[in-house]
Amino acid sequence: MAEHLSQSELDYPFKLLEYFNGFRVSKVIFSACELGVFDLLTTSPCALSAQQVAQALHASVDGTERLLDALVGIEILHVETQAEDGTALYSSTEVAGMYLAKGGAKSLHDMAIYQSQTIYPLWNNMVDAVREGNNQNQKLFGIPPEEVFQAVYRSDEEMLKFMGLMNSSWVLDGYDVVMAFSLAGFRNIVDLGGCTGALAREIAKAYPSSSVTVFDMPAVVEMATKHFLRADDTFTFQSGDFFHGELPVADLYVLARILHDWSEDKCVTLLKRICDVCEPGGGGVLLVEATLLESRRGPVQAQLFSLSMLVQTEGRERPPSQYARMLRQSGFRDVQVCRTGKTYDAILALK
Amino acid sequence: MAEHLSQSELDYPFKLLEYFNGFRVSKVIFSACELGVFDLLTTSPCALSAQQVAQALHASVDGTERLLDALVGIEILHVETQAEDGTALYSSTEVAGMYLAKGGAKSLHDMAIYQSQTIYPLWNNMVDAVREGNNQNQKLFGIPPEEVFQAVYRSDEEMLKFMGLMNSSWVLDGYDVVMAFSLAGFRNIVDLGGCTGALAREIAKAYPSSSVTVFDMPAVVEMATKHFLRADDTFTFQSGDFFHGELPVADLYVLARILHDWSEDKCVTLLKRICDVCEPGGGGVLLVEATLLESRRGPVQAQLFSLSMLVQTEGRERPPSQYARMLRQSGFRDVQVCRTGKTYDAILALK
Repeated sequence: MAEHLSQSELDYPFKLLEYFNGFRVSKVIFSACELGVFDLLTTSPCALSAQQVAQALHASVDGTERLLDALVGIEILHVETQAEDGTALYSSTEVAGMYLAKGGAKSLHDMAIYQSQTIYPLWNNMVDAVREGNNQNQKLFGIPPEEVFQAVYRSDEEMLKFMGLMNSSWVLDGYDVVMAFSLAGFRNIVDLGGCTGALAREIAKAYPSSSVTVFDMPAVVEMATKHFLRADDTFTFQSGDFFHGELPVADLYVLARILHDWSEDKCVTLLKRICDVCEPGGGGVLLVEATLLESRRGPVQAQLFSLSMLVQTEGRERPPSQYARMLRQSGFRDVQVCRTGKTYDAILALK
Repeated sequence: MAEHLSQSELDYPFKLLEYFNGFRVSKVIFSACELGVFDLLTTSPCALSAQQVAQALHASVDGTERLLDALVGIEILHVETQAEDGTALYSSTEVAGMYLAKGGAKSLHDMAIYQSQTIYPLWNNMVDAVREGNNQNQKLFGIPPEEVFQAVYRSDEEMLKFMGLMNSSWVLDGYDVVMAFSLAGFRNIVDLGGCTGALAREIAKAYPSSSVTVFDMPAVVEMATKHFLRADDTFTFQSGDFFHGELPVADLYVLARILHDWSEDKCVTLLKRICDVCEPGGGGVLLVEATLLESRRGPVQAQLFSLSMLVQTEGRERPPSQYARMLRQSGFRDVQVCRTGKTYDAILALK
């Protein structure tokens, strides 16, 4: 029997209408992040009226009030109505404070900004991407489809926003993916395309006796050092191009959200290059990706990411069996898969 | 204590990430509607492979497969894997057949198209709309903010798409709103701004001894007659401008999703014009709107619509008390409110 939405949808499609409204809910949260609603409410010593919020954010009272009320509706903010004069006073919830404020303990603020300003408009071209089976970078930015990172890094501003996105992903899943396997036996760990160093930071914390290096393009390393490096960081940066330049010597190479950007051919090329320099009898590679189920039935998150990859890169999300096949084809063996139950999973293979 | 997302979000924000993905889920469904996925699968005598779907829709196999798999993930389609060769075969679910295929019994296909092609890009300007407290028609289309329907009807194509949206709304809620109160006592019913006549059709079916007229702008009436009128329809059309021209004489005026387009001043102006011509001692007005709760805590659907109104019109969604106040101010009395529990509610008032 078909797995599908509950039969009661046939009486009235509440769930389907929720899906139709999905873009509105995303934009309510994203817009509030862009306007600074959560930063204001989490730092305010007391609950604020729509008028006070509007004034602080230089926004209209009417628009602010509607936005705040929608955030209450989806339980991201809290409201209480004053008995005296009926004024609604808005305050942050713990969820908003932790994830949506800039300074939150697990802030996804930069993820929200990138999704709102870059990914949301890109997805408006999904029909063309499905028709053509290609990213839409040529049409949108005049950049050839195979020059994926020329498009992603098409301006300093876009580069910084993209790095913010990468950075905030590991806030949630970094610990789980570095603990998926014991990496303590690897003395030199290189995170290839490690971007801001957010995952390297997690590795360095979890395995303090290993030496950890982030390897990325010169412009990225420059931006990372300037904007994301912290005084107490113990990992180092190294500049280069993992497709064309010399790779640093290490016994573990991490590829976190790298292979999903590329075609199978390019993935195998990269994995072979790594296998060539990887120390035999002890060296390995750790892949971190949002893996699909072999049954093709989920997880929804990975399926949606795979469509994002279609519209923006030349890659896709894959089930573990495809990663295992590419790894073996490139000279690796002993492939182990660990599903974290969160967004990103880990796959370890040895040379 | 604050009402907010479950405490478990503080461990891992599954619900929040679902909200972040909302725009992707909307676009998956919308894109499939635009490409004709549901029309194909509901009329196909057997389940189809991604390759067969891609060929029929002139789309890439890779893109089509990713889209189909995401539709399986959100339970809109069904997939079975053939034992012999592992080919995945996709088929429609009852929900997709009823709501998403063009010919479905309660098709929301035209709603999906309008949301995808017009409302989704409009919402990309939400931050500016909240800041300015104004629709974004000037910036986007060069049309002054107060000329709301010049913008909505900015081309024949847009007019037709908007009318499709209006039409498909009443597929779901039309019966409930016309049955919310017994309207059998009203002999002449005029649906002001009745667009395609979809709600008038429901009224005419429910109250066969009443005479039902759709009153709308000449261009709308022309388009409605050409594209939406059915051979067995018993209602008639009349052209005019309810803000400036003469209103037809009737004992019940219906304003369905009209007042939410306008400022309070314009609403009261319109209601007074209606009250002036409405037959005393027996005449009335029926408002149909997605009403907000007085507490400002929901429903989410109406809160999101209110933001849509911000970005696109000069109106808003309102709680029943605001409609009641405007009605009384315009000369109506005996205001009764009926919440349907679905998207649209009904408010009846007598002269």
